[in-house]
Amino acid sequence: MILQSRSAFVIQAAALLALLSSAAAPGADWSEQDLAAAAALRDKAMTGTRAYEHVSSLVTEVGPRSAGSPGDAAAVRWAMNRLGSLGFSHVRTQDVLVPHWVRGTAEVAILAPFPQTLVATSIGGSVGTGEEGIEAQVVNAASLDALSALPAGNVKDKIVFIDERMQRARDGSGYAATVRNRSQGPSVAANLGALALVIRSVGTSDDRIAHTGGLNYRPDAPRIPAFAISNPDADVLARQLQAGKPVRMRLKSTARELPPAWSANVIGEIPGRERPAEIVLLAAHLDSWDLGYGAIDDGAGVAIVTEAARLIGKLDRAPARTIRVVLFANEEFGTSGGREYARLATDTLANHVLALEADFGAGPVWRLESRVGSESVPSLSAMLGVLAPIDIAEGANTADPGSDIRPLMNAGVPILDLTLDGAKYFDVHHTVNDTLAKVDAKALDQSVAAFAVAAYLAATKQGDFGRVPVEPAK
Amino acid sequence: MILQSRSAFVIQAAALLALLSSAAAPGADWSEQDLAAAAALRDKAMTGTRAYEHVSSLVTEVGPRSAGSPGDAAAVRWAMNRLGSLGFSHVRTQDVLVPHWVRGTAEVAILAPFPQTLVATSIGGSVGTGEEGIEAQVVNAASLDALSALPAGNVKDKIVFIDERMQRARDGSGYAATVRNRSQGPSVAANLGALALVIRSVGTSDDRIAHTGGLNYRPDAPRIPAFAISNPDADVLARQLQAGKPVRMRLKSTARELPPAWSANVIGEIPGRERPAEIVLLAAHLDSWDLGYGAIDDGAGVAIVTEAARLIGKLDRAPARTIRVVLFANEEFGTSGGREYARLATDTLANHVLALEADFGAGPVWRLESRVGSESVPSLSAMLGVLAPIDIAEGANTADPGSDIRPLMNAGVPILDLTLDGAKYFDVHHTVNDTLAKVDAKALDQSVAAFAVAAYLAATKQGDFGRVPVEPAK
Repeated sequence: MILQSRSAFVIQAAALLALLSSAAAPGADWSEQDLAAAAALRDKAMTGTRAYEHVSSLVTEVGPRSAGSPGDAAAVRWAMNRLGSLGFSHVRTQDVLVPHWVRGTAEVAILAPFPQTLVATSIGGSVGTGEEGIEAQVVNAASLDALSALPAGNVKDKIVFIDERMQRARDGSGYAATVRNRSQGPSVAANLGALALVIRSVGTSDDRIAHTGGLNYRPDAPRIPAFAISNPDADVLARQLQAGKPVRMRLKSTARELPPAWSANVIGEIPGRERPAEIVLLAAHLDSWDLGYGAIDDGAGVAIVTEAARLIGKLDRAPARTIRVVLFANEEFGTSGGREYARLATDTLANHVLALEADFGAGPVWRLESRVGSESVPSLSAMLGVLAPIDIAEGANTADPGSDIRPLMNAGVPILDLTLDGAKYFDVHHTVNDTLAKVDAKALDQSVAAFAVAAYLAATKQGDFGRVPVEPAK
Repeated sequence: MILQSRSAFVIQAAALLALLSSAAAPGADWSEQDLAAAAALRDKAMTGTRAYEHVSSLVTEVGPRSAGSPGDAAAVRWAMNRLGSLGFSHVRTQDVLVPHWVRGTAEVAILAPFPQTLVATSIGGSVGTGEEGIEAQVVNAASLDALSALPAGNVKDKIVFIDERMQRARDGSGYAATVRNRSQGPSVAANLGALALVIRSVGTSDDRIAHTGGLNYRPDAPRIPAFAISNPDADVLARQLQAGKPVRMRLKSTARELPPAWSANVIGEIPGRERPAEIVLLAAHLDSWDLGYGAIDDGAGVAIVTEAARLIGKLDRAPARTIRVVLFANEEFGTSGGREYARLATDTLANHVLALEADFGAGPVWRLESRVGSESVPSLSAMLGVLAPIDIAEGANTADPGSDIRPLMNAGVPILDLTLDGAKYFDVHHTVNDTLAKVDAKALDQSVAAFAVAAYLAATKQGDFGRVPVEPAK
C-alpha cells in the first residue's frame, strides 16, 4: 500500500467516494446511470477531444479579435459556422454594442542618462499623446499606494513609473494584487498632476513583451496617456533610476477611440430531453485583445465549452436540461456582452439553473469551487467523486465567477468555477505571446472532461442548485 | 561508495587526475604552485564574481550596439572606461571600419485566405521593399534543398516561404543545420525568380519574436528583400498553406544600407611577469544586434573574459605571459573587427600563444575542446584536472573557434573552446529577448572560473601549445 502511486490512490479513493456519495443518498441528486454516464464522458474526453482543433481553427482563420475590429466580426462569423457545423441547435447571435478603441503605435524611450528604446504598449482605453508626444522627467513609485502617498509637488508635470512586479501563483492571485496599477493608476497619477503613466507590465514573463488590458479613467481626473513596458525593460529603467541621476523619457502613442460598433454574443444549444426550458449555461468569450492571437484568452475557453457541449450532444440519451453555450462579445473592454445577455435574460433568470465559464487559459482544471445555494453544497460531493480521478480537488462555496457570468450570479444564478491552472497564464495573457504554441492539447482535453462532467451532471440533477444572494446593481 | 553523489565522485576523481597529471610529468608543463593557483582562482570565482555586474552595466548604460550605430560608439566608450577603471594596462582602441545597415520597420501580413498580421523582422543586410511594398502569392518549401529543387516556374514572381524548424541542442548544432536558410536563402530564391523571401526564424523559442542575423547576397543574384517571422507566426502561415487555398502576402521593409562607419576593437592587458611579449588572448565581441540588449550575445562574453582577466590581475604573482583581452567590433556583420586585429597582428602572430573566445551565451561551460598542436594535446589533461570539479568534460582537438579569433587560428594560432551550454541560447539569440533577465549569475560565475583557469594556465605553461595548420585565406 505504501508503495502505491499517488494517482492510483487518488483514483481508488475517488471511486470509493463516488460509491459512498451515490450510496449515501441513492437517487437524491443523480441516478447511478447518470453518474456512470458522466464518468464515461470524462474518460472519453481524456482519451482526446477536438478542442485543440477548435482553438487552432479560431487562431488560424481569425486571430486577433478585439471589440469592434474586423477580427471581431470575423470571429462572430466563425463561431456561427463552427457551432452550426458541429450540430448545435438554435445557433443565433445577440447584438451587443461594443467600444472600439484602436491601439495605434506606442513609442517609449529613455532619453537620459542612458538613451534606450523600450518595448511598450498603450494600456487599453488610453488616450494618445498627440503627434508631439510627451517628454519629461520620471518619478517612480513602488506601488499604487506608494504613488498615492507622494506629495503632488513631486509628481506634477512628471511621467510616473509604477514599478511593481506581479508574483506567480496557480490561482492568479498575483494579478489581483497588481492589476490596479493598470486600471486605477492613470487617474491616480493624473490627479497628482502627472503628464503620463508608465507601468511595469502586469505579467509574470521575463520575455520582452508588454502586457495590455483595460484602464478605468475616473470622471474626476484628467485623461492622461498610459503605457505598459515589458519586465526586462522595466528592469533597465529601474536600474537607471537607481543610479541616481535624473531620468528623462519620451512617450508617444497614436491610440484613439472610434465610435462604438456592433458585435454579438453567439449562442448554440444542446436541447434538454425533459426540461428543455431549464438552462445550464457554459460561457467563454469570443473577443480577445488585439496584440496576440487570443489562443489562451479566450480561444481555449471557447474550445473547452464548445467541445464539452458537443460531447454531451453526442450521447445516446440527452440530459434533462438544455446545455446552452454562450460565446460572449467584448469581455475585455467592459463586458458589454455579459451585461447584455443578463439584461435580455431578465425574464428567464429563474430558468438558469447553473452557469460556468472557462476564461483562465487552457487548463488543466485543478479545483472545483462553487457559489450555489448553501443547501446544495452537499450534492457537489457526488460531482467531485467523478472529477477527483482527473486530479480535481474540492474548493470553497465562495467562487468568483468569470466576468461574463457575473451579472447572472449577481442576479441569483448559481455558478461553478472549474479553476484552470493559472501558473503560466500570466506569462502570455494580454500579450503578443498569446498563441497556439502555448496551448497544451492534453491539458485542454482534461479541461473539456471537467466541463463536460459538470455540465452533464448539472443538466441531469434531480433538484436544482438553489439560488445565491442577489447583489445590488452598481 | 555506491551512495556517493555523482558530483562528489567527480571532484575526487578530478583531484586524483590532477594529482596524477602533475605527478606523472612534474614540472613539464606546470609547477604544483601554478596548478594550485589555478584551482584557487577557480574556487574564488565559484564563490561569486563581478561578471554579472559587468553585463548589467553594459546592458543598462549602452544596450543595443549594432555596427555603426550610436550604441556601437557608446559601447566603445563604455569598454574603454570599464577596462580602465578595472585596472587593466595598456587600454586602447584599434580602429575598424564597419558596415552600417539600418533595420527600419518590417511589415508582414497574410492577405488571403485569412488576413493576419505577423511578427516579423528584416534579415540583417536585407534591402528594403520600397514604399510600395511587395504583394504576391506564397510558395513554400520545407528547406533550402527543397527550394533549390523547385522548378523556377513555380517560384517566379512569388514570395518564397522556407518553413524549417531549428532543433534544440546543447552544442547549438541545430543552428548550423538551418542558418543557411537565412544566409543563402535570399540569393537561392532570387535566382529562381522570387520577389522576396520569408523564413521561419532560425531559433528555438515558441515566443512571438522574430530572429535576425546576417544574410549573404551572392554577386550573381538579384538582391531581394528577406524577412524572418516568429515560430508561432510561421505556424499560422503553415496552417493556412496546409488548408490548400492560395495564400497571398504583403511585405514592406524600410531597411537600408548607410555608408560604412568607424568603430573599434577595445584592448586591455594584464601584463606578464616574465615573458610579457607572449600573449594569451581572451576574446569576446562588443557589438550586438540591434533588436535586443545584447546581454547574451555577447555582453556575457565580454563580462566573462573581462572578469577572468581581472581576477588573474588581482593575484599576488602575475603569470609569466600577458593576458590580452580584446573586445571585438562588428562580429555580427562580417567580423571586420576580428579580421582587422589579425591583419595588424601579422608581425606578432608567433607571440600569440593561445586564443579563447566567449561568444555563446552566459554559460555554464560544459566541455573543453581544443585546436592545438597535436604534441600539446596531452598537456591539456592537467588543465582538465582543474576544470573537472566544475563539471567540464574533455572534448576533441577539433574545436571550432569563435568568429573573431578564426583569422588567428587560420594563421596558425592554437585555440581552446570552453564550450558554453547552448541549450537555451537560441531561444533569445538575435532577438528582442536578449536581455539581462536571461543571464544566470551562477552560470556566469562558473564560466568566469573556467576561463580564468584556462587563461592562467596558458599564461604559466612552461612550453607553448604548438601551432595549428595554416588555412589558406579565402
